Amino acid sequence: MTEVKTVDVLIIGAGPAGLALANWFRNSSIKVLLVDKKPVPTRRGKAEGLKSTTNEIFNSYGIGPQIAAESWRLEEIAIWGQKKDGGSGIEREQLIQDKVEELGKVRETMLQQSRVEYHMQQNLLSHKNITIQYNTQPVEVKIDESSLHEDEAYPVEVRLVKTQVQSEAASNILANSTPDTANGDAEEVEERIRAKYIVGCDGAHSWLRKQLQVQLEGDLTDSVFGVVDMIPKSNFPDIRRVCYLRASTGTILLVPRSNKEVRLYVPVESGSSLSDPKDLTFDRIISAARKIISPYTLEVGSVSWWSAYRVGQRVGSHFSRHNEKAFLVGDAVHTHSPKAGQGMNTSIQDAYNLGWKLRFVLQPTKPQLDPKAARNLLATYESERRPVAQDLIAFDRGYLKLFAAPSSEFDTEFLRAMKFTTGLSIRYPPSCAVQLPRGVETAEQLGPSLLKADLVPGKRLPDFQAVYQADGITCWIHKRLQATGSFRVIVFAGDVATHRHLSENVQKLGKYLANPETGLGVLTAGGAAAPVEVLMVHSADREKVEPRDLPEVFRPWSDSEGYDYWRLLADAESVHEGHGRVYERLEIDTEKGRAVVLRPDGYIGAVLGVDDIDGLGEYFRGLGMLPS
Amino acid sequence: MTEVKTVDVLIIGAGPAGLALANWFRNSSIKVLLVDKKPVPTRRGKAEGLKSTTNEIFNSYGIGPQIAAESWRLEEIAIWGQKKDGGSGIEREQLIQDKVEELGKVRETMLQQSRVEYHMQQNLLSHKNITIQYNTQPVEVKIDESSLHEDEAYPVEVRLVKTQVQSEAASNILANSTPDTANGDAEEVEERIRAKYIVGCDGAHSWLRKQLQVQLEGDLTDSVFGVVDMIPKSNFPDIRRVCYLRASTGTILLVPRSNKEVRLYVPVESGSSLSDPKDLTFDRIISAARKIISPYTLEVGSVSWWSAYRVGQRVGSHFSRHNEKAFLVGDAVHTHSPKAGQGMNTSIQDAYNLGWKLRFVLQPTKPQLDPKAARNLLATYESERRPVAQDLIAFDRGYLKLFAAPSSEFDTEFLRAMKFTTGLSIRYPPSCAVQLPRGVETAEQLGPSLLKADLVPGKRLPDFQAVYQADGITCWIHKRLQATGSFRVIVFAGDVATHRHLSENVQKLGKYLANPETGLGVLTAGGAAAPVEVLMVHSADREKVEPRDLPEVFRPWSDSEGYDYWRLLADAESVHEGHGRVYERLEIDTEKGRAVVLRPDGYIGAVLGVDDIDGLGEYFRGLGMLPS
Ligand SMILES: Cc1cc2nc3c(=O)[nH]c(=O)nc-3n(C[C@H](O)[C@H](O)[C@H](O)COP(=O)(O)OP(=O)(O)OC[C@H]3O[C@@H](n4cnc5c(N)ncnc54)[C@H](O)[C@@H]3O)c2cc1C
Ligand SMILES: Cc1cc2nc3c(=O)[nH]c(=O)nc-3n(C[C@H](O)[C@H](O)[C@H](O)COP(=O)(O)OP(=O)(O)OC[C@H]3O[C@@H](n4cnc5c(N)ncnc54)[C@H](O)[C@@H]3O)c2cc1C
Repeated sequence: MTEVKTVDVLIIGAGPAGLALANWFRNSSIKVLLVDKKPVPTRRGKAEGLKSTTNEIFNSYGIGPQIAAESWRLEEIAIWGQKKDGGSGIEREQLIQDKVEELGKVRETMLQQSRVEYHMQQNLLSHKNITIQYNTQPVEVKIDESSLHEDEAYPVEVRLVKTQVQSEAASNILANSTPDTANGDAEEVEERIRAKYIVGCDGAHSWLRKQLQVQLEGDLTDSVFGVVDMIPKSNFPDIRRVCYLRASTGTILLVPRSNKEVRLYVPVESGSSLSDPKDLTFDRIISAARKIISPYTLEVGSVSWWSAYRVGQRVGSHFSRHNEKAFLVGDAVHTHSPKAGQGMNTSIQDAYNLGWKLRFVLQPTKPQLDPKAARNLLATYESERRPVAQDLIAFDRGYLKLFAAPSSEFDTEFLRAMKFTTGLSIRYPPSCAVQLPRGVETAEQLGPSLLKADLVPGKRLPDFQAVYQADGITCWIHKRLQATGSFRVIVFAGDVATHRHLSENVQKLGKYLANPETGLGVLTAGGAAAPVEVLMVHSADREKVEPRDLPEVFRPWSDSEGYDYWRLLADAESVHEGHGRVYERLEIDTEKGRAVVLRPDGYIGAVLGVDDIDGLGEYFRGLGMLPS
Repeated sequence: MTEVKTVDVLIIGAGPAGLALANWFRNSSIKVLLVDKKPVPTRRGKAEGLKSTTNEIFNSYGIGPQIAAESWRLEEIAIWGQKKDGGSGIEREQLIQDKVEELGKVRETMLQQSRVEYHMQQNLLSHKNITIQYNTQPVEVKIDESSLHEDEAYPVEVRLVKTQVQSEAASNILANSTPDTANGDAEEVEERIRAKYIVGCDGAHSWLRKQLQVQLEGDLTDSVFGVVDMIPKSNFPDIRRVCYLRASTGTILLVPRSNKEVRLYVPVESGSSLSDPKDLTFDRIISAARKIISPYTLEVGSVSWWSAYRVGQRVGSHFSRHNEKAFLVGDAVHTHSPKAGQGMNTSIQDAYNLGWKLRFVLQPTKPQLDPKAARNLLATYESERRPVAQDLIAFDRGYLKLFAAPSSEFDTEFLRAMKFTTGLSIRYPPSCAVQLPRGVETAEQLGPSLLKADLVPGKRLPDFQAVYQADGITCWIHKRLQATGSFRVIVFAGDVATHRHLSENVQKLGKYLANPETGLGVLTAGGAAAPVEVLMVHSADREKVEPRDLPEVFRPWSDSEGYDYWRLLADAESVHEGHGRVYERLEIDTEKGRAVVLRPDGYIGAVLGVDDIDGLGEYFRGLGMLPS
C-alpha cells in the first residue's frame, strides 16, 4: 500500500475558486494540497469580467496591481432593438454608462480568466506550505464519521491518481468544447491523502459534489448558448461597446475583448432545432448572429475560441457536509447564464468567504479555540453564501427577461442590476461572525438589504479613500486590508482635535486595547501579526493631530522597525485625488464617531459606539477568541 | 587573433542610461551589444525619484504599468528652519504639496534605481537583436577616421575583456562605497567588436569620455555628501515627509523610502574637517544629523546602504565626437548634486533623445536615407541635450542657494523648481527635427522657454486625456505613443460635426495622407508599422461623429485584423475620469484646429494649420524622409 500523506486542507480543482481559496493560506503554517486534473493551468476562453469587489480581493492578496495593469475597461453599454418605424433591422435605443456612483470607483474591469488564474497561481509559488499538483484527480473519498468531533483528527481520506494527459489545444480551439466531453481518463499511479478538510472547487461537473450526495436544485434550462471569441470585420458602429442586441430574429450579447476581438454570446431559445448544444456548430452560431445584426455586416477575421453549452440555473442543496469537514465552492454549487458575468466573480467570492474561516480554525491560537466555536464559524459559510447563490439565480431569471422586453424603468432596473452584480446588495445574516447592533433583535429590523453603500453588520465595508496622517498619501481602505487573517477594529474617532469627549473616548479605548493582560488587549498585542489589528480614521484637521499624543496602539513601536505609521488615517483632502469624504459617505457623525469590527474578509462584523468596550468584547467572545 | 563581431550599436554601461537607450531598439533588426563591467545588475542604493516625464518614457516602452505598480508617492514637502523665537532647535516653516497643476497628473513617483533598471533590463530579454553582457569592459577603442563618411562602414573597433568578479555586497553595505574604489580589474579573455556607433553610458567616471578626450567643464565642488538609507527611530513629526532641514548646525535633506526606511542626505560644507569623503564615516554622518534634527531624537534601527562622495557640477565639452559616430550619455557628461533628484531622470531622457535618432538612421528605409541627413539628425543630440545639462547645473547652484536662505518668494521659486526638474521648461532649438512656425524666424521670437504646458515646436507634447471615439475609454496620449520609431501627425480637427470647413479640411488632408503614391501618403501607408502614424482628436459631440464618414487613414482596415479603432479620439467627458479639456489646455481653437507633428520621442516637431499640407511635407523633407 502507498504511504499516506497528511494535509490540513485538500482542495480539488485549481480554477478561480480553488486558487482563490489557496491564496488565503499564504504566510501561514497550514498545509494545503491543491489538485487539478488539467495538465496545465487554463490558457484561454471562459470568463472575463472582474467586479470591483473581486478586485478588492486581489488587492488583499497583493496581486491587485499586476491584475489592474493587465486589465482594461468597458465604459459604455449600448442597447439595440428592432427598428421602431417598422423597418427591418436594428437601431440603437440607449447608451448606458457602466458606473455606480456610490461605489466611488470603477465598477468592472476586464481580464481573461486564464490571466486571472495565472496571477493567483504565481502568488502561491513561494509559499512552501501550499502545493499545486496538476494532472491529478481524486477517485475515492472517505470521511470517517467517528472522528468528526475531534479537532486534531484527519477525518478525510482521499485516493488520488494521475490524469491521462490531454492536449488542451485539441479540445478548445475551433472544436465544440462542451464541458461534458473534457473528462480525462485516470492512470494507475496513486497517492493516499488524509486531510482535516476537503473542499470541492471542481466546477460545474463537480466530482466531490456527487460523492457528498449534494443535489443541484433548480432547472437545467432550455437555453443553449453559442459563444465565440473572434476578430470581427464589421461596420456595426458599436462594435467596441458592450451591446445587448434584440432583433426579431434573436438576441446577441456582444462584449469587446482585448486586442481587436469581440465575444458574442448567442442564445438559441427553446423550441429551436438547435436546442442540443452538440448540434450547434460554429457556422450556425455565426449565421444566426449575422441575421440579428443585419443590416450591419459581420465577417469573421479569425477565431481564437468558441463553445456551445446549455445553461443550468441551479444551486446545491448543501454547501458543506459531514459537520463542516467537506465544502463545495463556486460552480460546483451554482450555475447560471453567463450574461451578467457572475460565475468567476461569485466563485472567487465564495472561496474568499470560506478561506479565512478555515485559516481561523486551523491556525494555532492561544488559548486554543473550542471545537464548537470552530464549527459554528465554519457553518456560516453555507448560511452566508447559499443565499447569495439563490439570489443570483433569481436575479439571472429576471435579467434575462429584462433584456427580452425592457420596461419603461429600464434605466433604473439596469442600475439596480449593476449594483447587484457588483455584490453591493449582499448582506450576510446574523451569526457568531455578524453581530446585530444594540437594540436590534433580528436582521429584518434593519430593513431590506440596502443597495446603498453603508455601514451595516453583514455587509462589505464600503471602500473609501482617506489619507495617512504621517505622509498625506492616499489610502483606499480595501487595498490597505491585506488578507492576513487578522480581524480589524477601525475606530472612526471623529474630530478628536476639537471635541474633548472624543479624545477621551480614544484614550480610554486605547488603554484597553493596549493592555496585553486584559480583554481585547490580548488580541491586539503583537503589532502587525496580532489577531486583531487596530486602525483609526479621524476627521480632525490633520495639522492639529499629534500622533504621539494618541494611545500607542495606533502607532505601535517595534524595536527592529520603529513606528508603524500606517494605522492612523485622516478623512482629509489629498494632494492629487481630491477628498474622500469618508464620514459623509458612511454617514458617521464627526462629533460621535463609530467603531467598526471588520472580519478578515472585509465584511462588517459589528458596528459600535467608540466607547462601547463591552460590545467589542462581546463580538470576540462570540467567536470564541476571548473566554466567556 | 580573436574573431571580430560586428554590431550596429555598442553601448558601454547598463545603468539607467544604457538600458534606456537599448530599449529603443526593441522590435527592430538593429544589432545592439550592451556591456557592463558589473557582474550583475544593480541591487541597491542610488536614485529613487521618477519624474512624470520619465514615467512617460516607461509607458512608451510598455513597462509603465509594472513600474507604476511598484512605485509610491511622496505628496508633501516640509521646510524646517532654526526656531524664530531665538530658542535652540528647529521648527516647521512650511508645508508644500508636490504638485504642478498644469501637468494634469502626478509629478513624481518613487522607485529605487535597481527596480527601474530591472524592469528596463527585463524588457530587453525577449529581443534577440539586443545582447547584454555583464562582467565585460572595454580596454581599447579605435575609430577609423577614413571611413567616417561611409554610411555602411563599421568605423568603431573596440577590444573587450572580462571583468574580474567583485562581490557587490562587500563594497556596498556598511562600507564606504565612494565610486572611485569600485573599479574591477580586467582578466585575459577578450573579444573584438566592430560597430557603426559607440555610446558611452558608463557613468560619472566614464572610460569612453576619457578615450574621446572630452573634458568635463565646471567644478568639482567642495561639497561632500553623506548619504544613509536606514530605518530610523525618531520622534521627528515629519519623518514620512520629504524634509529640508536647515539648522544653524547644518542641513539635511530627508526623503522617506519604501517600507520604514528614510534616506538622509547630509552635506558637509567646505572648510569642514570632513571635506574629504574618505574621512566621512557612518558615525560622523549620523552624529552630524543628530545635531541638526535636535531637539528631536534620531536612533538608527538598521542601515541598508550608505555612502559619502564629493559633488561635481560639470558638463562635458562634447556630447558626440568623430562625426556623430561616438556619443556620451547620462552621468558620463554631467554631474551635479543629488538634491533635486535629476541624475537618473536626465540620464534616461538623454538616452531617449539619442535612441530614436540612431534607430532612425539605422533602420532600412525606402528611399535610402542620405548620409548627410542622417548626420544632421544625429548632431541634434548634442545641440538638444547639452543645453539641458548646462541649465541643470545652473539650476543646481540656485537650488542649493534657495535652501540655504529662502527668500520671500520661496513658494514661487520652489514651484518653478518643480516645473524645471519635471522637464517642463525644456525647449529644443530649431533644427532639421524642430521646425519653427510659419512667420517665425528664430527661436527667440517664440519668447522665453515657457514653463506653461503648451504647443510649441521643440517642447514635449503636453500630456492630455481624451477618449476613444469607438469605446469611450480614456487615453492619456503619452501612454498611447509607444516607442516604435514612428513619427506622428496628430490632427486636432476641431468640431468637425458643426463646421463644414473643418470636415472639408479633414477630407482634403485625409486624401493626401491616404494616397500611397504621393507626398506624405508614402510615409503613412502600411498601417501601424508606417514611418508616420496619423491620429485625430476632434472636439465634436461624439454621438454626431460617424467614423466611417472620415478618411480611411483615421480608421485603417487590415485584412487580418479588421479596423484599427484606436486612432480616433474625442475631447469629451469620460465615464470615470472627468473631461480632459484638451482644446482648452492646449489653447486650440475648436473652429480652426491644428496639426501637430510629433517626433518619435514625443517632442513637437512642427505645429501647423490643419490644411497646411505644404508645411507637413516641408517638415519631412527637412529630415530627408521625402525627396526634396
Ligand atoms: C464562455 C464562458 C464565459 C463566461 N463568462 C464569465 C464572465 O464574463 N464573468 C464571470 O464571472 N464568469 C464567467 N463564466 C463562468 C466562469 O468561467 C466560471 O463560473 C468559473 O470558471 C467557475 O470557477 P470554479 O473555480 O468554480 O470552476 P472551474 O473554473 O470550472 O474550475 C474547476 C477546476 O476543477 C478542475 N476539476 C474538475 N473536476 C476535477 C476532478 N474530478 N479532479 C480534479 N480537478 C477537477 C478543472 O480542471 C478546473 O480547473 C463564463 C463561463 C464560460 C464557459
Ligand atoms: C546616493 C545617490 C542618490 C541619487 N539620487 C538620485 C535621485 O533621487 N534621482 C535621480 O534622478 N538621480 C539620483 N542619483 C543619480 C543617479 O544615480 C545617476 O545619475 C544615474 O545612475 C546615472 O545613470 P547612468 O546610466 O548615466 O550612469 P550609472 O548609473 O553610473 O551607470 C553606469 C554603468 O556603466 C558601468 N560602467 C562604468 N564604467 C564602465 C566600463 N569601463 N566598462 C563597462 N561598464 C562600465 C557601470 O557598472 C554602471 O552600470 C543619485 C545618485 C546617488 C549616488
